[in-house]
Amino acid sequence: MKTTNDPRTERWLLPDGVNELMPAEAWRVESLRRLIMDSSYRWGYELVMPPLIEYLDSLLTGTGETLGLQTFKFIDQHNGRSLGVRADMTPQVARIDAHAMRSEQPNRLFYIGSVLRTRSDGAGSSRTPLQFGAELFGHAGPASDTEIIQLMLNNVMLSGLQESELLLDVGHVGVFRGLILDSGFSEELSEALFQALLRGSRPEVQELLQQASASPQACQYFTDLTALAGEADSVLARARLCFADAGPAVSQALDNLQSVIDSVRLVFPGLKVHVDLAELRGYRYHTGIVFALYDDAGSELARGGRYDAIGESFGRARPATGFSGDLVSLALARNSIEQSMAPAAVGIWVDSAIDNELWMQICLLRQSGERVVTALPGSSMSASDCHCDRTLANRDGVWKVEVLKS
Amino acid sequence: MKTTNDPRTERWLLPDGVNELMPAEAWRVESLRRLIMDSSYRWGYELVMPPLIEYLDSLLTGTGETLGLQTFKFIDQHNGRSLGVRADMTPQVARIDAHAMRSEQPNRLFYIGSVLRTRSDGAGSSRTPLQFGAELFGHAGPASDTEIIQLMLNNVMLSGLQESELLLDVGHVGVFRGLILDSGFSEELSEALFQALLRGSRPEVQELLQQASASPQACQYFTDLTALAGEADSVLARARLCFADAGPAVSQALDNLQSVIDSVRLVFPGLKVHVDLAELRGYRYHTGIVFALYDDAGSELARGGRYDAIGESFGRARPATGFSGDLVSLALARNSIEQSMAPAAVGIWVDSAIDNELWMQICLLRQSGERVVTALPGSSMSASDCHCDRTLANRDGVWKVEVLKS
Repeated sequence: MKTTNDPRTERWLLPDGVNELMPAEAWRVESLRRLIMDSSYRWGYELVMPPLIEYLDSLLTGTGETLGLQTFKFIDQHNGRSLGVRADMTPQVARIDAHAMRSEQPNRLFYIGSVLRTRSDGAGSSRTPLQFGAELFGHAGPASDTEIIQLMLNNVMLSGLQESELLLDVGHVGVFRGLILDSGFSEELSEALFQALLRGSRPEVQELLQQASASPQACQYFTDLTALAGEADSVLARARLCFADAGPAVSQALDNLQSVIDSVRLVFPGLKVHVDLAELRGYRYHTGIVFALYDDAGSELARGGRYDAIGESFGRARPATGFSGDLVSLALARNSIEQSMAPAAVGIWVDSAIDNELWMQICLLRQSGERVVTALPGSSMSASDCHCDRTLANRDGVWKVEVLKS
Repeated sequence: MKTTNDPRTERWLLPDGVNELMPAEAWRVESLRRLIMDSSYRWGYELVMPPLIEYLDSLLTGTGETLGLQTFKFIDQHNGRSLGVRADMTPQVARIDAHAMRSEQPNRLFYIGSVLRTRSDGAGSSRTPLQFGAELFGHAGPASDTEIIQLMLNNVMLSGLQESELLLDVGHVGVFRGLILDSGFSEELSEALFQALLRGSRPEVQELLQQASASPQACQYFTDLTALAGEADSVLARARLCFADAGPAVSQALDNLQSVIDSVRLVFPGLKVHVDLAELRGYRYHTGIVFALYDDAGSELARGGRYDAIGESFGRARPATGFSGDLVSLALARNSIEQSMAPAAVGIWVDSAIDNELWMQICLLRQSGERVVTALPGSSMSASDCHCDRTLANRDGVWKVEVLKS
């Protein structure tokens, strides 16, 4: 998704993290968009289209500081209230579930739309992703997390990427939360530990615990946590040993993780799965399992997790789990299907004067799926310039499609 | 496109001119989107996807004041430069033609994407339209204007609206421009006349001409202009008489108008066509024919015209003609096809524990186009809640699709 080193952008520079798509790329994105939409529908998910802008209080309620920083804001010229361009559609879809649909039953929703971010997330990431995602509301068990991860894998693999090229990285914020609960640490220390773990700094974690004169067991727990990352089975086995004496919240989180991973693997047996128990990105927002999917070059393709708390901010608590990713990055990813998925570049060339009869022929051909391109008077553009391999010729008063000699 | 009087928005208000689409509406929009894309491709047009944001100078170059007022602006946190969210994709596509594609040949492009406007255009119009449109670059004759209008009609009628329900309103800025050229009026008077015509005020036009002591002929010309609106043949015939002694620019504009209208009518014989020679919206931007398409309730469905000058601002003058409209308004318009174009709401319900064999069955069914919804443990949601009419049942070790008794 780089805009530099591209000959066209040297002439007319686009902002960092902003791309325009030429026809071949645009068709790849459009084709994958349709595949994902149709497939999500077949999984029982319903399409919704939330608005590009909303009042800032709706857009950011219950979402945490990061999203606020990522959101472009302005004043509504109609009434002076603050508006924002959505930087993430997930909270919008949660609001739709809570307020526009109001079902007591589980509710499966999906969406694809442009979002806008003030800053690029990191190396080469887009500020104008085409976000695709799905959310499952109203069900709290591992079955819904499993289904969401399976749908994420299904959608990502529609790009042509293979199971064996993917890495699923899974964590669970309940482990850290449970250990903090057990420890009785102050809010201040908990926050400092959270920040240190977020930075992945083991020395900092150890220093904080020493300064706080934490119990040897607590020191051990949080130090262990920084090292519990890697191949799923091995990490889960080590975590069981490390946290054998920890409280029920921790073992519940580990059980939950195990159950989801087993169910995902049952139907995606070739998938590489890693567990990272110190992965706390999105901690303030997520309440259970968290996950991210990478390709074998280490690029993130999609991410998600459980966020049961968001409903509360909307005045209606509903369990929720979901994922999202950037459809443009996915469609143009290294190993996704290379060829344009556009209809083949062939067509029928028309350079006769158009009367009613010829027009009917052209309409019928287009309705049958043919590409029919008409010549423009005075232009030197030829059939081959327009990728046409056939022509419409009048033979004894009848219009016939004839192959063009190349 | 109203947001008021809608029970769901009373609970969580969306800004004026901003809508969210629930599944049935969203599928109508998505279905029409695909129909328009596929059809535009079959007309020989290529898909491009310009970015949601650009530097303000690229976004507004050569576009006039109105677009500037309609554009949301911010500062790029990466480098302090001014950014804008596109309010119109036409100038973006013109830039892509001029800079990214650089063909000397005619170039046909189309696009569908979200745009954002600071203010609602008028009664009920959207601030977040899903803009659909097409542009034809590099051809100056009436043939390209004709093709663009025909494609606009084709795309609008894909919504289910009939030829007989549509009104095409056509004008030509060359008539006013030619009359001003002939008159030798000062720039100040020309601008004042333009403003008065824009307001459609005949008394104001007459007063301006009297104050300026314009010649009786000039007075007659501009007064006539305000009255030249109505059924196409009648207006064109009257215009020929009124402007019989006007300069060649005026008669050329009338010839051009006649030629385009005749060619459009040849293939859309049932279409109502009006001509309005004092229609000067977009005058600063347009250079030739201008047009708008309305439904029989008077709602605008799409508009466009010739704008040969825009290329100059990009350093590469190219003749250009095109149209655009709001796909959401069109899909939800009064007489467009009422039923959701979504795949029929039927499906296969699965409430058995999923093993590898059952999963394979589910995958195969989904690949064949079936909607398969799985039960969530502990949820009371039933097959009928999920619009499923069949189920997967294991009969003697074999999974079979069976009709559910309702």
